[in-house]
This record gives sequence, structure tokens and C-alpha cells, in this order.
Amino acid sequence: MTITVAQLEKEFLTYVNKMTAYNEALGLIYWDLRTGAPKKAVDQRSQVIGTLSSELFDLSTSDEMASFVAGLSPHKAELDEVTVKTLEECQKEYERNKKIPADEYREYVILQSRAESVWEEAREKSDFSLFQPFLEKLVETNKRFVNYWGYKGDPYNTLLDSYEPGVTVEVLDRVFGQVREAIVPLVKQIQESPHKPDTSFIYKHFPNDAQKKFSLKILEEIGYDFEAGRLDEAVHPFATGLNPGDVRVTTRYDEEDFRGAIFGTIHEGGHALYEQNVSEKLVGTPLCSGTSMGIHESQSLFYENFVGRHPSFWARHYGLLKEHSTGQFDDVPVEQFVRAINESKPSLIRVESDELTYPLHVMVRYEIEKGLFNNEFEVEDLPRIWNDKYEEYLGVRPENDGEGVLQDVHWSSGAFGYFPSYALGYMYAAQLKHSMLKDLPNYDELLSTGDVEPIKQWLTERVHQFGKMKKPLEIIQDTTGEGLNAQYLIDYLTDKYSEIYSLEHV
Amino acid sequence: MTITVAQLEKEFLTYVNKMTAYNEALGLIYWDLRTGAPKKAVDQRSQVIGTLSSELFDLSTSDEMASFVAGLSPHKAELDEVTVKTLEECQKEYERNKKIPADEYREYVILQSRAESVWEEAREKSDFSLFQPFLEKLVETNKRFVNYWGYKGDPYNTLLDSYEPGVTVEVLDRVFGQVREAIVPLVKQIQESPHKPDTSFIYKHFPNDAQKKFSLKILEEIGYDFEAGRLDEAVHPFATGLNPGDVRVTTRYDEEDFRGAIFGTIHEGGHALYEQNVSEKLVGTPLCSGTSMGIHESQSLFYENFVGRHPSFWARHYGLLKEHSTGQFDDVPVEQFVRAINESKPSLIRVESDELTYPLHVMVRYEIEKGLFNNEFEVEDLPRIWNDKYEEYLGVRPENDGEGVLQDVHWSSGAFGYFPSYALGYMYAAQLKHSMLKDLPNYDELLSTGDVEPIKQWLTERVHQFGKMKKPLEIIQDTTGEGLNAQYLIDYLTDKYSEIYSLEHV
Repeated sequence: MTITVAQLEKEFLTYVNKMTAYNEALGLIYWDLRTGAPKKAVDQRSQVIGTLSSELFDLSTSDEMASFVAGLSPHKAELDEVTVKTLEECQKEYERNKKIPADEYREYVILQSRAESVWEEAREKSDFSLFQPFLEKLVETNKRFVNYWGYKGDPYNTLLDSYEPGVTVEVLDRVFGQVREAIVPLVKQIQESPHKPDTSFIYKHFPNDAQKKFSLKILEEIGYDFEAGRLDEAVHPFATGLNPGDVRVTTRYDEEDFRGAIFGTIHEGGHALYEQNVSEKLVGTPLCSGTSMGIHESQSLFYENFVGRHPSFWARHYGLLKEHSTGQFDDVPVEQFVRAINESKPSLIRVESDELTYPLHVMVRYEIEKGLFNNEFEVEDLPRIWNDKYEEYLGVRPENDGEGVLQDVHWSSGAFGYFPSYALGYMYAAQLKHSMLKDLPNYDELLSTGDVEPIKQWLTERVHQFGKMKKPLEIIQDTTGEGLNAQYLIDYLTDKYSEIYSLEHV
Repeated sequence: MTITVAQLEKEFLTYVNKMTAYNEALGLIYWDLRTGAPKKAVDQRSQVIGTLSSELFDLSTSDEMASFVAGLSPHKAELDEVTVKTLEECQKEYERNKKIPADEYREYVILQSRAESVWEEAREKSDFSLFQPFLEKLVETNKRFVNYWGYKGDPYNTLLDSYEPGVTVEVLDRVFGQVREAIVPLVKQIQESPHKPDTSFIYKHFPNDAQKKFSLKILEEIGYDFEAGRLDEAVHPFATGLNPGDVRVTTRYDEEDFRGAIFGTIHEGGHALYEQNVSEKLVGTPLCSGTSMGIHESQSLFYENFVGRHPSFWARHYGLLKEHSTGQFDDVPVEQFVRAINESKPSLIRVESDELTYPLHVMVRYEIEKGLFNNEFEVEDLPRIWNDKYEEYLGVRPENDGEGVLQDVHWSSGAFGYFPSYALGYMYAAQLKHSMLKDLPNYDELLSTGDVEPIKQWLTERVHQFGKMKKPLEIIQDTTGEGLNAQYLIDYLTDKYSEIYSLEHV
């Protein structure tokens, strides 16, 4: 019995619907674990995760999947465009997963979970030597995997590709070079500036409940749909899109410093707006999510920095903030408030750093990863190299590895190639903002009047709706008419921080 | 290559672990849907439920399952006892599921979901005629299924068996007969009694937050482990055991009547204590849960009535309640409070009824279900029969079907045979309590001093730990030395309500 292409397409879509269902169930389980699952739930829940993940892995590498790919690929012209992109996505994953020998993959999964707990201990004790043998094994395994997968140009490109498809070492060297050249001297100038913002009023008591009420209000103000989401607390805040009708935000409250909650909420809200506005027609396929780490980060950073830290946003919302707080802003004019929340200061910890210095933190990690995968240095040299680079770019030197090379979780789970996305997100955001201003020249006014719908609409039409239908650089090209260009970020940062710190314009 | 029994046993247990994982994932999804999943999540989440449920169904009826049953059943003597009971459980489910032709089952699933939404509309409009054709189809389908499954004695026995294994019409006729004979006159006497409790102080404002704090405190006091659970809100409160390390309770707050929240929390807390204390060695098998609806209900009712409505419990906790409330109990002595929370009054709605009249509500439903499946009357006669029975047993007559035959969701989902479990739970609870007093004659003192650990321990040793390793009547027999005996419930209710309403002792 022969089967028509249309029939095969239908079967394939049913098959990927099933994979999507497993993914959604896993997403809910992870959300739950991070927002309040009881402590004793974890052991057995890990079994559930293991079962569902391995089912998903089996589905992605099955003979059935192979025959869908083989049967449908020659007929792309006859298929719906969503099917074509879905097929390409599945094929990529199939090949990626199939090229690793099963026993090596199993070993790697065990290594990852052991490495994570060793890393935690090592960070706590600030003892790199504990983590070093595991990191060596993780790097070595990933080098082997890169060889299985193959690479073009630089071996590190293959790792980059899994987080930011299409972005290569060549691209990153160029943009990071530009950023380094412009930002490093700017950071130095700021440190020397006598015009520093007064931030003393920040560290006053702001009750959790009130922060929460304000956070909910602000999420609503930026256009987050509460019928398709909710706000919870998590130690490490995140947003997760289970499907476009269920995109959850988390935040964390610190009663002595409200900034984490407010800007964290807006940041995760930016991620959430992306996921809430993916086109309905992608639901049930693997395309129904942000296209890459970097584009995702561009949306969260857009809202955090270009909306949440913008003077016009606070022209509208400062009164509301005052209403929710217990008097800490009463004697603080809005201009002083806005300067304070835009303070920049070189620091050691990436996740606590500000908008201006953040790309430098990322650059350190990029250069180290690239060097590792090009055999330019060994894992044992990392603490020294890390500290040297921090001193060179940021003018600060960690006193121990806990506040240095051991600070991030990423490497312990083998996530090499992930960090650059954070900085790419900044560059994408600034480039998109530059384009947006051509269509919405009254941007500042939209913020000060609270009419943010056109901003959301603009981003939805050009970014959100496509999900994974477009690759990151395709979105940038189609929207801005050019490839990735770091200059927009540099201009934005230079203008903004020169003003805040009253620098002589360069 | 032949495979040893030990190898096959190991493979079988891995296989059931996988089924357990699917069940746990589904449990979490249902919990989430009922405690705060966003409205727009539901459509896609239903797809996820569909996928996981049908995977689970396939696993339970697969050829692989058949070969486990065939391969292991002859070797029960060599298997671990947990394996044996698991095998029996799987075999029962396999046979149950396999006997229904696949297309009839599919049709039935569609019928169920349509019937539920029609029932909702019919109840809202108090219009039985809307629901009648669906109920007829549901009954007819279940009759056909009973024929596929086969039955002993009464066809209704087969339906009972899926909720309360081992309990038959013969058993129920006996115990319900006794209950009717004793309780119906008691309810009448109470109505005529001039000594009614003053309940006016109940309907005063008690803020939600304060009710929640008190509920959390009380859960802790009865021995609920918050490292293995959490308390949330739900419109229809429930408890759910995902695994013994994750057993969640929900409740609902009414600011003008605190009783729902407090007694609801204790009731669900009783269910939760059962699930939290199932033996660790059953984790990952289908035995790791309460053995039946009735035994489950016995635990929730034990805590709700024998703990939560007991004078000694309030001797200890009334002060705490006063602290949490806003003065409504200030002029109310504890004795008056205890009388008020034990008020009994015939009413029309089962879920709002009290401890004394509740078994009569259940009896009405039992008699109707039994009659339906014995072709003693037709679906179209139900409204009249329902109203007549309410008048006969409770002395009240519904004015419309919304407050009568349409009030419960159960039939709309085809759950025939479920209702009797509610009343069995009462009888089990009273019988267990009677036995417990032999071991813990200082029961009242344990409550008044807050030393409830021995009570929990006693129930864990005799009921909780076994999960589904023992059948309901096995637990009753092993613990109390006799079969189900309704007299303990009758004695308890007669003594208690005679005292509250100052009745002449019969």
C-alpha cells in the first residue's frame, strides 16, 4: 500500500504533536520544581523527568522519524511551510542526536549531573581544584562530540550553533572587538567621573507583598496577558512558555533592595511577551517558541532596559511605585530615581552587573570558551586567565575562584557556547530599537502615556509571531535591513552613560 | 535466548515504573489545572493530557504487558510480594481495558466529555430533560460494559468493584439498611428538639489570609509534613498524592463562613496523611496510593470528624482560632463553639450536608444506581424517585432538579458505583476508631494535649503503609477483627447527637 505525501505529512504532524506534548509536560514539571514543589518530591520527580526525557529522545531518533525525514524531504515544494520548517528542525535534531554513540551519551548525562553537584561544592569552598577534573572531562567530551558533529571553520562554531544558529566565531570576534574598543574606555571614564548617582534611598525596607503588587501591576502595564500566564516566586527567576496560552513569569523579592524584583519581573516579562505572541499556527510543533537564546534575550533586555529603565516609563509609573512603597521615595525626585536605577559600576559577578558592564562579563567567557576549544590553553589555567581578563576589561580582580571562574552554573552542565547569546541579545535589542524608532518616532511619548501596545505590536509583527520559523540573523536582516551591527549598542551605551555621568562627549 | 524469572521480574518493574511516571506527570497537570493554571492554557494542556493518557492506556494493554502477565503469573512463589500484587493489579487493569472494543471505548470518552458540559448547562437551568438523553446513553453504555466485563450476583457489583474492591450489593444492602433504620428516626428527633445550637457567631467576617494561616497551622498540628506537600486554593478542594514525598492539599476560603476552609483543610489533610505515609517500598508501582475510595474517605473523615470536630481538639486549639480571627469568638465559650460546629440539619445538597445526614444523601444515590442497573426503573423517572427518597429519608423535597437529581457531577462522567464509597468511608472510620480506642484509651487526652503522633502512627501501621497491598475489607478485618460493621457508626452518631440535641436516649 503506498501512502500519499499528504497522508505522510499528516502522520508526521501527529508525531510532532506528541513530542510537543512531552515537552510541555516536562516544562510544567520544571516550573513546579523551581516554584514550590516540596523538597521530598524531588527524588521521584527526577524519575518522571528521566522517563519523559528519554521517551522524547527516543521519538526524536526513532526509525519512524528517519522515515518521515526521508519520505518528506524530497517533497518540500508540496508541503505547508510550517511542515517544512518543522521537518528541518527535526532533521537537525535527529542528526545531532544520532551522531553521538548511545553509550557515550549516557556517560555524558551521568557526568553532567555529577559535575553540577561538585561545582556547587567547589563554588561554596572557592576551590577550583575540586571542579577542575570534571571540567576537563566536560570539555574533552564536548570536543569529541564536536568531532562527531563536524564543524565549519572553528570547532567552537558547532557549539555556538546550538544556541544561536548562524552566529559564528567570525561574527563574534568582529562585534566583541568593537564592543571592547568602545566600552572598556567608557567604563574607565565613568569610574573616574565625580558625577555619581546617589543611590542611598534604594536600600530601604520595601515589603514583599507590596513589591509583588507593584510587579503584577507593571507586568500588566507592559502588555503581559494574565489569562495566559501567572507570576510566582523562584530563587533563580525565569520565564517559561509551556504554550502561547500559558507563559509563566517568576521573580524574587529582596525587602532591602527592590530593584531585583522590579527589573527581574520586567526582564522575564519581556521573555514572556515573546512566547505569548508566537503565532497560533505553530502550536503543537517544535517551532512554537523563541528562535534562539540571543533573540530571546533581546526581548527581555528590550523591556528591562529600553522600557523599564527609561525616564519616560518612570514619568508615568513613579507615582505608582511611591504608592506601593513605604515612603522611601518621598524625598527623591524622579530624575534622581532614574539616575540611580541606571548606576554603572564594574563588579565581579555577572548576574549582579549593570547594563553597561554586562557585555564585558560575557566577553571574558566567550574568549575563554573559544580558547579552550581551540586548544589555546588548558582548563587548569582558567582561574589565572579569568582573573587577568577581569582586570584588563573591568579593572577588578577576583580574590577567590568563588567570585571568579566558579560563579556560573553553565559549564558544570556542559553548556559551552551559551554565554555569547547574552551579549548578542543586547546587540539585537539595540539594533531593533534603532529600527523601531523609524516606525515609532514618538517612542518616548508612548512610554510616558502608557500606550505600549504599538511597541508590543511592532515586536510581535517582526519577531514574536515567527517562533522558530526564522533564524536569528534572518529576523535581524529582515527587520533592520542589515546584518548584526554592534554599533547601535555602542551608541546607545555611550550616549546614555555619558549623560548620566556627565562625561565629555568623545 | 531464554530469560530467567528474576530478569523478567526486573523488566516488569522497570515497565511499571514507567507507567507510574506517566501517572505522576498527569497528576501534576491536573493539580495545576485546578489550582491556578491560566485560562488560555487549557486547550493545549488537554492535548498533553490526551497524549499521556493514551500512552498510559497503550502501556496497560500492550502485548508486552500480556507477556509479563503470562510469563510471571505461574511463578508467583518466586517473586517479591510487591511484584505479585503489582502483577495482579496490572492484570486486572489489562483485562478490564482489553474487554472493551477500542471503538466503543473511544465513543464513550467522547460521550463523557459532551455529557459533562451538557450536565453543567442542565444543572444551571435546572432542566433534567437536557441531560436525560446523555444520562440514558451513559447508563446504557455502562450496562454494555458490565456485560463485557462480566459480573457475579448483581450487575452493579462490577461497577462497585472498580471503586471498592470486594464490596457488593449484598454488603451494602445490609449496612445501608441498618443505617437507615437508626438514622432516619434520629434525624427526625433532632428536628423536633428544642435544644438547637446557637450558630449565629459563625457567619461573621474572617479574612482569607487569617483563615489560611490558621489552616496551615492546623495541618501542621495533625502531623502533615510540609516538606512533602503544600497547601493551595481550589474551587473544588481536593488532595492529590503525586508520590509519598509530594502530597498536596487544597482548600477554599469563604470570608463569611470559616467552616468550609477549616474542616475542608482537615478533611483533605486526612487524605494527605494517608498518601504521605504509604511505604517507601511501593514507590514506583501502581500500589503506591490509597487502596480504595472508601478507605481513603475513612481517613479524611476520621480527621475531619473524630479529630477536627472533637471537643478535646478545640480545648487545645480554640485559643489559636481566636488569635487568628477578628473577635467573632470573643464572647463564645468553647462548649458553645463545639456544639455549633456539630450542628445537624436536613438539607438538599450533599456536599453542604453534615456528618449525621450525609449517609442518607449517599443512600439515595446508591438505591437509584442499583435500581438503574437492575432495570427497576428508567432514567426518565429519576427526578421523581430522587425527590421522593429525599422526602422519605430527610424530610425535605427539592423544588427543582438543580438542587435535586442534577446536583452531582459524578453521573455525567459515567462514574456509577462511586457514591457508596462516601458512606463506606464513614463506617470504616467509626469501626477503626472503635478499635483504636482499645490501643489508645487516652485518645481524648492525646487530642487535648496535641500529642497526635500516636494516632497517626496507629493509622499508618494499620492502614496507610500498605497502599494497595491490602484490599479494603482486608484492612478492616485485619485491624478490627471483624468484617464491615455499621453499628459503630450508628452508635457514634446516636450518642453524639443525642447529647448535642439533649434527646432522650433511645
